[in-house]
Amino acid sequence: MMQHNLEHTISLLTGTPAALNALLRHLPEAWTFRNEGENTWSAFDVVGHLIYGERIDWIPRARFILQFGETRTFEPFDRQGHVCESRGKSLVQLLDEFAGLRADNLDKLRALNLRQGDLERRGRHPAFGAVTLSQHLASWAAHDLTHVHQISRVMAHQYRQAVGPFRAYLGVLHCSGHSSP
Amino acid sequence: MMQHNLEHTISLLTGTPAALNALLRHLPEAWTFRNEGENTWSAFDVVGHLIYGERIDWIPRARFILQFGETRTFEPFDRQGHVCESRGKSLVQLLDEFAGLRADNLDKLRALNLRQGDLERRGRHPAFGAVTLSQHLASWAAHDLTHVHQISRVMAHQYRQAVGPFRAYLGVLHCSGHSSP
Repeated sequence: MMQHNLEHTISLLTGTPAALNALLRHLPEAWTFRNEGENTWSAFDVVGHLIYGERIDWIPRARFILQFGETRTFEPFDRQGHVCESRGKSLVQLLDEFAGLRADNLDKLRALNLRQGDLERRGRHPAFGAVTLSQHLASWAAHDLTHVHQISRVMAHQYRQAVGPFRAYLGVLHCSGHSSP
Repeated sequence: MMQHNLEHTISLLTGTPAALNALLRHLPEAWTFRNEGENTWSAFDVVGHLIYGERIDWIPRARFILQFGETRTFEPFDRQGHVCESRGKSLVQLLDEFAGLRADNLDKLRALNLRQGDLERRGRHPAFGAVTLSQHLASWAAHDLTHVHQISRVMAHQYRQAVGPFRAYLGVLHCSGHSSP
């Protein structure tokens, strides 16, 4: 298990838009617009949520930590914030929007030119209290992975019946949805 | 939840090599060569396993069903079969090999020109007994998703400590490894 490493985080964050694009862009809506049942997300919803995080969460909170430290608490993040913004858009539009925002945000992250001392600075999370900038940035990478994990599960769910007895060997069909919103 | 649809299966199978390539190719080995502990797989191991399945499992068993029906049982699949074959190769080599084999296999699948009656044909699985060709092919797609799910979990595991209190919100870190080999 590794310590947080800013270059490793940037590497991971760099690849996610292209990975989701390759996974989803060419698929019929039968894969990308279906969810796991009431109040769950489709792949389309997840990409909308990732966009919302790019706009509202990761870089804004990083700057907030650097500016205010523990003296001010982050604004709570709205987990349904993407719903209105995604409405009427296509998945292709969302994938392009995510890729553009992520590239801009990685430019902004590099421009912060963070040193070890910066990464150890603390902010105040509304639920967790003190968190470090390092933890916040590591979570940005792990959050991408949480949603890749979720998308693979939501899509596999669509074939739960179709696979018949093979479901016993398909681990993704045994996932209990811990990465639901 | 949808019935098995061969075109949907082919769509899903088409995208996986490029998705894994975009997710993994540029990453440092700190992400791709670490696993979740003894007797678990790294992303590198998973790509090796996917290659082995392309060679030994999916198209060969589909042909076996069409040729022998339920009169002969599939050869058991060796879940460690990839280990020797991957040894000494780089992840980039494996990603390229997987992409090439998958493209060839999708050509072979299309060339079978399967009709509904073919999809309902049954073969004999060593553990499950009678399985249909439709179930076998749906499982090929869901198997890709199982391993995307696994790779995202294995990589997120590397940041389990680094994310600090945020782990409470990161569903992938609550996944109990049901898609381990």
